[in-house]
Amino acid sequence: MVGSAIATSRSAERVVVVGAGFGGLRVARSLRRAPVQVVLLDRNNYHLFQPLLYQVATAGLEPEQIAKPVRAILRGQKNFDFRMVEVTGVDFAQRRLATSGGPISYDFLVLAHGGETNFFGLDSMMKHGLGLKDIGDAVTIRNHVLTCFEQAMLETDPERRRAKLTFIVVGGGPTGVEMAGALSELIRLVLVKDYPRLNIKDVRILLLEATDKLLASMPERLREAAGKTLWRKWIDVRFGATVADFDGEQIRLKSGEIIPAHTVIWAAGVRAAGLSARLGLPTARQGRIAVEPTLQVQGHPDVYIIGDAAYGEQNGEPLPMVAPVAIQMAETVARNIARALHNKPLQQFRYHDQGTLATIGRNAAVAHVFGLNLSGFPAWVMWLVVHIIQLIGFRNKLFVLLNWAWDYFFYERAARLITRD
Amino acid sequence: MVGSAIATSRSAERVVVVGAGFGGLRVARSLRRAPVQVVLLDRNNYHLFQPLLYQVATAGLEPEQIAKPVRAILRGQKNFDFRMVEVTGVDFAQRRLATSGGPISYDFLVLAHGGETNFFGLDSMMKHGLGLKDIGDAVTIRNHVLTCFEQAMLETDPERRRAKLTFIVVGGGPTGVEMAGALSELIRLVLVKDYPRLNIKDVRILLLEATDKLLASMPERLREAAGKTLWRKWIDVRFGATVADFDGEQIRLKSGEIIPAHTVIWAAGVRAAGLSARLGLPTARQGRIAVEPTLQVQGHPDVYIIGDAAYGEQNGEPLPMVAPVAIQMAETVARNIARALHNKPLQQFRYHDQGTLATIGRNAAVAHVFGLNLSGFPAWVMWLVVHIIQLIGFRNKLFVLLNWAWDYFFYERAARLITRD
Repeated sequence: MVGSAIATSRSAERVVVVGAGFGGLRVARSLRRAPVQVVLLDRNNYHLFQPLLYQVATAGLEPEQIAKPVRAILRGQKNFDFRMVEVTGVDFAQRRLATSGGPISYDFLVLAHGGETNFFGLDSMMKHGLGLKDIGDAVTIRNHVLTCFEQAMLETDPERRRAKLTFIVVGGGPTGVEMAGALSELIRLVLVKDYPRLNIKDVRILLLEATDKLLASMPERLREAAGKTLWRKWIDVRFGATVADFDGEQIRLKSGEIIPAHTVIWAAGVRAAGLSARLGLPTARQGRIAVEPTLQVQGHPDVYIIGDAAYGEQNGEPLPMVAPVAIQMAETVARNIARALHNKPLQQFRYHDQGTLATIGRNAAVAHVFGLNLSGFPAWVMWLVVHIIQLIGFRNKLFVLLNWAWDYFFYERAARLITRD
Repeated sequence: MVGSAIATSRSAERVVVVGAGFGGLRVARSLRRAPVQVVLLDRNNYHLFQPLLYQVATAGLEPEQIAKPVRAILRGQKNFDFRMVEVTGVDFAQRRLATSGGPISYDFLVLAHGGETNFFGLDSMMKHGLGLKDIGDAVTIRNHVLTCFEQAMLETDPERRRAKLTFIVVGGGPTGVEMAGALSELIRLVLVKDYPRLNIKDVRILLLEATDKLLASMPERLREAAGKTLWRKWIDVRFGATVADFDGEQIRLKSGEIIPAHTVIWAAGVRAAGLSARLGLPTARQGRIAVEPTLQVQGHPDVYIIGDAAYGEQNGEPLPMVAPVAIQMAETVARNIARALHNKPLQQFRYHDQGTLATIGRNAAVAHVFGLNLSGFPAWVMWLVVHIIQLIGFRNKLFVLLNWAWDYFFYERAARLITRD
């Protein structure tokens, strides 16, 4: 039992939520008027707005602008408590979590621990490739890309200089497409001004996709529009390109092709975060744990799993690992916990797909939302509006908007600092 | 010789400037119309506005807001080039620098490599104490302080909880006073809202000063005003307190007193950065190198030293290690290099002291400037204006002002993230 303060206020049932991502945060908020005590656990003290992480990686936004301390977000909620701990295991029989800060018992448990980069067991990529799932990852990419430019300026050998200026993004989903587009604009609109001696012909950006489609969940017209925009941004898209190996200086494809490059950003897959494997529950695809239609774990009716960590199907298709699924699941779980307290029958989860958006740069995006198919400027405006609305906190909204406006009009990126080595 | 681009444009004399701090940057700028090629070297790619570093350490500002890439600052300057390298030594006879990016030759050399935290050989403090000289230091302090609060919430033992919530600042100069004031406001105005279970009586902030004076360079009336303000902010100021030892869990004073505390911020001294010791030149106090009145190094007329790395005296007193000295020295050196090119006699450096400012928190500062002695609100307004004016770049000015306004009106701090472990 952690904290005497908690131990003494045990009149209400305790709901422990693991993870302060989109799902976990929404569960905690939705239970604000329920007759329960909510304890949210996360190893970080902040909620991160992951959809804009690629902009931190490309020096457009500062980490503080897309993250907010959990305690600040839920400050007014009376039945809420936060603990910054890492969860290491769950004893379902004793209804108790093992954490880095000691054991914590629960009456209801909501596992919303999310996803992590999936390198598909490619050891060399795990070692030398750059994932993009948290603030540390994003700052590492930013530092690495900017350092490549600084080092290229010192490099006298043209072959080695070109390798330093070759940037490979793996994965043609929304993250990969957005990352490649933002990287191209960082280099071609901003860094060219910083490096007057740079020969832009030495710079290459490649987007590698294993299948024959970009943005597979989008209709064909939008996929084509995205492909055209990437082409106009000088991004070399390779279909049917599967990575075999990367040693930090060159990447080898399954086809045998070798491309000298010092930077590989891996946006090719996500899987459930490590905790899933330590729960002793059978895992499905991507290490996710299959849940009942009520989002309960089979055999453990007091345990719910949501978001990237949960595996569910709808109309014979697996649910995608995206924020809207986590948020909608969170609302179902909050309702089901309230129903369970009143011994009412639980609701089944149904996902309402609102579509997909991806931005590729200035005035360019594709949007397949609310039954509409948009590309170009209208899609870009919709992308801006949707992301600003979803960002948590007025201060973050204001600063992100100001940053975007500045960068848009002055062709700049504020955060071009190399802050770590 | 680094970079073929440089090797081929050797018509003009080359001035190599080491360090992109206040001094180095000003030399590079002041030489913009001189018939020379300017090469600025720094191990970081940015100029840091150090006077606001304590606000990054106390979660008020984001690192990106007080730093700007050197290439962006000097983008328009035709005779300028930047190299992100670490200088490891100088061969004065060959007029050549050894750097992490290979050798670089010079015609004139300006050493402006600045200062670093001076732990006065106190090994235990070097290991467990927190310095405040660069962005990494500031983010480390921020993470450490916020982590102490999170851990204190998990701590059941009252003694250990109080130790986690005891924050010691060593050094009663401007940095120590500003740090202690900002820390107190972070805790008493902001964190109390994040931690409703926190007992504020468990929190202690101590400011240790070895002599019997705070802000020794200020007139007595202002020193007293500063002392009163610190008292009103619940900061326990101890005079005649010299640190003997700190093991990360408790600090021992020379008097024998032991104070359990997990945080010691060391603002007690600065010395010339490490490069000074590797130059083979005789060093004076704080590892600084004595310079001629013209700021040349004795026996090496083509080498100048400025800022924290230089030792000079005026009216029998050593020049202080502060930004205005570095900036004024930079202007003298730029003029002297231009004069040397025209075989004119060199000018002697004279420091014009414009005074000292220190802010202690909301509406509270002391200012001894332009012959005026101000305290309270007028001094605070003057502090704000002076710092906003000096901050480089309109974007940084705008974002810092917005941040300050927000924090002032809403009693907030934006950057309360724990971003590293």
